[in-house]
Amino acid sequence: MSSTFTVDQELTAAEENIHNKWDNRLEPLVTVDSGEVVRFECRDALDRQLTPESTAEDFANANFDPVHPLTGPVEIAGAEPGDVLAVEFLDFEHKGWGYTGYFPGGMGFGLLPEDFDKPGFHVWDLGDEVAHFVKDIEVPLGMFAGVSGVAPAEGGAHNTLPPRDTGGNIDIKHLTKGSTLYLPVEVEGALFSTGDCHAAQGDGEVCVTGIEAPMFVTARFDVLKGKSISQPEFETTGPFTPTGADEPMYGTSGVADDLMVATKKAIRHMISHLQVEHGLTAGEAYILCSAAVDLKINEVVDAPNWTVSAYLPESIFPE
Amino acid sequence: MSSTFTVDQELTAAEENIHNKWDNRLEPLVTVDSGEVVRFECRDALDRQLTPESTAEDFANANFDPVHPLTGPVEIAGAEPGDVLAVEFLDFEHKGWGYTGYFPGGMGFGLLPEDFDKPGFHVWDLGDEVAHFVKDIEVPLGMFAGVSGVAPAEGGAHNTLPPRDTGGNIDIKHLTKGSTLYLPVEVEGALFSTGDCHAAQGDGEVCVTGIEAPMFVTARFDVLKGKSISQPEFETTGPFTPTGADEPMYGTSGVADDLMVATKKAIRHMISHLQVEHGLTAGEAYILCSAAVDLKINEVVDAPNWTVSAYLPESIFPE
Repeated sequence: MSSTFTVDQELTAAEENIHNKWDNRLEPLVTVDSGEVVRFECRDALDRQLTPESTAEDFANANFDPVHPLTGPVEIAGAEPGDVLAVEFLDFEHKGWGYTGYFPGGMGFGLLPEDFDKPGFHVWDLGDEVAHFVKDIEVPLGMFAGVSGVAPAEGGAHNTLPPRDTGGNIDIKHLTKGSTLYLPVEVEGALFSTGDCHAAQGDGEVCVTGIEAPMFVTARFDVLKGKSISQPEFETTGPFTPTGADEPMYGTSGVADDLMVATKKAIRHMISHLQVEHGLTAGEAYILCSAAVDLKINEVVDAPNWTVSAYLPESIFPE
Repeated sequence: MSSTFTVDQELTAAEENIHNKWDNRLEPLVTVDSGEVVRFECRDALDRQLTPESTAEDFANANFDPVHPLTGPVEIAGAEPGDVLAVEFLDFEHKGWGYTGYFPGGMGFGLLPEDFDKPGFHVWDLGDEVAHFVKDIEVPLGMFAGVSGVAPAEGGAHNTLPPRDTGGNIDIKHLTKGSTLYLPVEVEGALFSTGDCHAAQGDGEVCVTGIEAPMFVTARFDVLKGKSISQPEFETTGPFTPTGADEPMYGTSGVADDLMVATKKAIRHMISHLQVEHGLTAGEAYILCSAAVDLKINEVVDAPNWTVSAYLPESIFPE
C-alpha cells in the first residue's frame, strides 16, 4: 500500500487550475497515462475565504459561489465511456490547520438546521497525528478528499455539492492513503478532479463540514477496461476506528420509520450525551459529531421501524 | 469486561417462559436485584420450525405467528419509569447451527423484495470462531441478541418485529459479549425480555435474517437512577471489523436523494460485485450481505444526494 512513487505531474492551486462545476467541456490541464502519478494542491471547500483567525460570523457570511474549488481536470489517456478509472490515493499532506463549522439553521444546511439558529465554528490546529478540539479532545487525523470525481456525460455545468454517479462529493472518510477509488468513466479521457479535503470526518458529516483543510493530494491513475460499475466503488483498509483496532465506543440509537428521521434522532441523542457526560455545549457537540462520530445503519428491514446508531470513540477524550 | 460472574437465575426456553408480544401486563418470571445475573435460553426467531435439514421451501412456508419467541420477562427490583436499565452482556453460547434466509419477494420482507422472486436459505455450521458458508467463505462469529427490550408504557400487546423506544428488535450487531445496553424504563420493574439471537450479522441485516440461532444469553442488570434517555444507548468495543483491527474492505456506494434508495443501490452494487468477483449467485450474495456486509452512512448533508456504502471484509474469503 505504501509503495514508493514518483510524481509525474504537479498541479498547483493557482487560479487557472481551479474549477467549481462538473462540466465535460472543460479543457484538461494535463494528460497522463495509466500508471502515472499526479500531485494536486487543493484549496479548502470555501476557497480561502477563512483563516485560522476567522470567527463563526465570518464562516456564516462566507460566499458560497466558489464552492467547491476543485483542482483539475486531469485527462487520463485511453479512458473511454464504460471503462472504470482507478484512483489510488498515495498521499495526503495538510497545511497545519483546518476548520469545522455549521451555518445558521435558517440557511437549511446540515442534518439538524432546525436545532441550531446561530452558526458555530472551530479552527483546528493540525499536528502530525491529531487535530485539537476543546477540552483537550484530540481527533486522530484521517485525511482524504471529500470530492473526487470524473466529468458526467450529461452536458452543461453541474453543481459540485451533491455526490453523483461519477463520484464527486461522496465524502467517504475511508478513502485514506492506500485506498483505491473506482469511478465509472462517462466521457473520453475521464476528466478527473479533486478537492474539498478533510483532515478527519465522521461517517455522516452531520454539521455539513468535516475538518475542512487546504491539502495536497497525490494519486495514481489506472484505466480498467474489464470492469463495469455504475456508481463509485472502492478498496480501503480504513482506519475503521481512531486507533485502528477495536476500542470502546459509546452508541446512541435512533429508532424511527424513516432513515433520515432515525439518523437525526441518533445524532440528537449523541449531542445530549456529549453535553451531559462530557460538558460540551450543543454546538461543540454538533461539530465533534461531524468530525469524529460515525453513523451505521444497524437494521433496515424490521418494518415499520429502522435503527441507525451514532458511534463515539472514547479514545478521543483525555484520560 | 470479561469479569467473572455467577448466574443468579436460569430461565429455560420452556413454553411457560416464552412470550411473543411486548405487553406490560405480562407476569414476570422472576424478580432480580440490581447486580444480579440471569442466563436466558433463547429459541431461534422462527421458534423451532426449522432444523439443520430444512430447505428454502421450509423457510418460505414458516408460520410467522410465533415470531419472535422471547424469554422473559424479568422484573428488576426498584426500576421505575424514567430510570435507565443497564444490561451488561456477559456471555453468548450457540448450539452449533444457525440459518439465514430470504423470503419470496411477494411477501415484502427484506431490503430488496423486488429483486428476489423465490426464497433462499443457508444453514450454517457454527464452530468456535466462525460460521461456514459456500465456497469456503468463513464469517467470524459475532454473537448477540437481535431483540433485547423492556415493556412499553403503552397498554396492549405490541408486535415484536419493529424496534421501539424501549429497544426490542434493534439488531445492533455490536451488542456483543462485554457490551452494555441502556434502555429507558417505562414501567415498574422494567420487564426485560430477550431473544432472536444472531451468531453474526452485517450492519443492515439486509435480507431480513442474520445468522439466526438458538442460543443462551447471560446478562447482568443494573438500575440507573441518575441517567435519562429516550431511546436505546450502549457501550461496546465491537468488533468493528471481523479481525478486530483494520483490514482490507471492498466498498460499494449508493448515491441517491433518499437514504433508503441509496441503501438499496449500495447493496445491489455489492451483490453484483460478489457475483462478478467471487462467483456467488445473487441469492448467495444477498445472504452473505445480510450476515457479513456493513452499511455506513458516509454523508447525509450534501443535498440533494446522500452517500451510503456497503463494506465487504476481504478476510472472509479463502486465501
